[in-house]
Amino acid sequence: MSDLPHSVQINEEGPREGFQFEKGPIATERKVELIDALSETGLNHIQTVSFVNPRLVPGMADAEEVAARFQRERGIAYTGLWLNEKGLERAIACGRLDLAGSISLTASEPFLQRNQNRSLADNIAMQHRMMGIYQENGVKVERGSVMAAFGCNFAGDIPIDTVCDMVQQIVDIAEEHEIELKVISLADTMAWATPYKIKAVVGAVRERFPLYDIALHLHDTRGMGIANAYAGLEMGVASFDSAVAGLGGCPFAAHKGAAGNVCTEDLVFMCEEMGIATGIDLEKLIEAGRLAEDIVGHPLPGSVKMGGGLAALRQRAG
Amino acid sequence: MSDLPHSVQINEEGPREGFQFEKGPIATERKVELIDALSETGLNHIQTVSFVNPRLVPGMADAEEVAARFQRERGIAYTGLWLNEKGLERAIACGRLDLAGSISLTASEPFLQRNQNRSLADNIAMQHRMMGIYQENGVKVERGSVMAAFGCNFAGDIPIDTVCDMVQQIVDIAEEHEIELKVISLADTMAWATPYKIKAVVGAVRERFPLYDIALHLHDTRGMGIANAYAGLEMGVASFDSAVAGLGGCPFAAHKGAAGNVCTEDLVFMCEEMGIATGIDLEKLIEAGRLAEDIVGHPLPGSVKMGGGLAALRQRAG
Repeated sequence: MSDLPHSVQINEEGPREGFQFEKGPIATERKVELIDALSETGLNHIQTVSFVNPRLVPGMADAEEVAARFQRERGIAYTGLWLNEKGLERAIACGRLDLAGSISLTASEPFLQRNQNRSLADNIAMQHRMMGIYQENGVKVERGSVMAAFGCNFAGDIPIDTVCDMVQQIVDIAEEHEIELKVISLADTMAWATPYKIKAVVGAVRERFPLYDIALHLHDTRGMGIANAYAGLEMGVASFDSAVAGLGGCPFAAHKGAAGNVCTEDLVFMCEEMGIATGIDLEKLIEAGRLAEDIVGHPLPGSVKMGGGLAALRQRAG
Repeated sequence: MSDLPHSVQINEEGPREGFQFEKGPIATERKVELIDALSETGLNHIQTVSFVNPRLVPGMADAEEVAARFQRERGIAYTGLWLNEKGLERAIACGRLDLAGSISLTASEPFLQRNQNRSLADNIAMQHRMMGIYQENGVKVERGSVMAAFGCNFAGDIPIDTVCDMVQQIVDIAEEHEIELKVISLADTMAWATPYKIKAVVGAVRERFPLYDIALHLHDTRGMGIANAYAGLEMGVASFDSAVAGLGGCPFAAHKGAAGNVCTEDLVFMCEEMGIATGIDLEKLIEAGRLAEDIVGHPLPGSVKMGGGLAALRQRAG
């Protein structure tokens, strides 16, 4: 139990994950309101928008406007997401985000084909081209990401060797461009992971690639998000992506079954209760979670915003 | 990782937990319908009703009628719950349940006072009287239970020594009546536990009372239910109470934040994915979870009934 990390890095992705998937239109000012509320919680990393095709993802058509209007606070990295060169160019042009590049491959070729209409070879070629753009524009690249690292709705179970091969390809791309990666992020894109698998995959990647920190991007579609995060913590993982109130996920249903990323306030609650510092004020984060629910206009899956933290109860019990 | 048990015992408490807390009236025949559906899933233990004061818990006023009408299937223990002698006498009189006695103490006296209007001393005295009734009626007593073992909304954190003292008092009561207990159940009645605390408390109880199996009764109010179950599994715990679809909990809200017991199908999904046999057919259980949702008429918190299992996806992926 003493192997748990002393502190964790939490990358908030709620604004990007959530507003991208919501069915109804959400006013730009309300998106900005949530980002500003998150800036008050102690989070030091907020992914604000994605630069994706506005015809395919109309909820993100106002990405530039959102990026222009939120209030920057010191010590917080406000990032964005892109999936191709065009998105990256928009992110650079917008000029108001803390751009962080990554080398991103997918452990399932059938998923890559459906999600991005590309082969693995195409994707590798694109990563090389994007490295060029990153370097021309002075964008730091410290992260490699493997999507669908724990299983895929189209390819089924993903062998651990396949995941390690993807990491190796990422490392090769980085080396070719003389970039030193720091973090390998493993994404449970389609929520296939259970804690045992988290330990097995993280263990194998760590054994083959001991120089990199490992980060986890977990989805909660099958209710395993927090348990998977705990399994990661037990393996020494100290960096997680998460979404306030459990924003995000499938646009066709509003409750927990359709959950996107693991819920930030539930993750913060677990960590802080176990003595793992997050730097985040849980009560303020719960308020932001309730604000997110108000903004989308339907219940969101996070639990702690309903059940409440323990601080007030402890105080009352005296 | 090899310390995980090979199989687990799951005690389904959905019908009792759920119908006891629902605000609206639910027809007796629909309660029976859920119990009958659960009987088809492979579950071998279903807690069907509670014998509690019908003025305080009107949703359970038809306990005798429910018990009279569900269809018994071979190999399944159909149990009931009672909190005092009067309830126990009703359970015995009903004559259709598989009665299992337990010695139940509460690690928080302020909670005991509010929940059952009794002091610890009163409660111990009552346990002795109930032991007499169990023995007169040939009711087996194999389980001791500690409620509020991980924290309490009224008493705050519960010292591990207090939990161990409660277990000792349970063991003393059993010895006085020459009963050999098999299982000590630790209940996170008010959802204060996180995985680290599960490990600490289970570890301490096991160390002081190595002769007993440990069972966990987990609530999901703060979204920790499945992670806490995983922590229990890692400590070798192989017996869990749970509720189909996450039935139960607070009557004032219908979604995950108000969750009662940890959700059975989410727990079964996690166990089976990790190679831990449950004896339960996940697809049939998911159907029962959806039926539960239909019966209560509002969304219930379980995730896997929304996200679906992986069997069909694996098959399709070939």
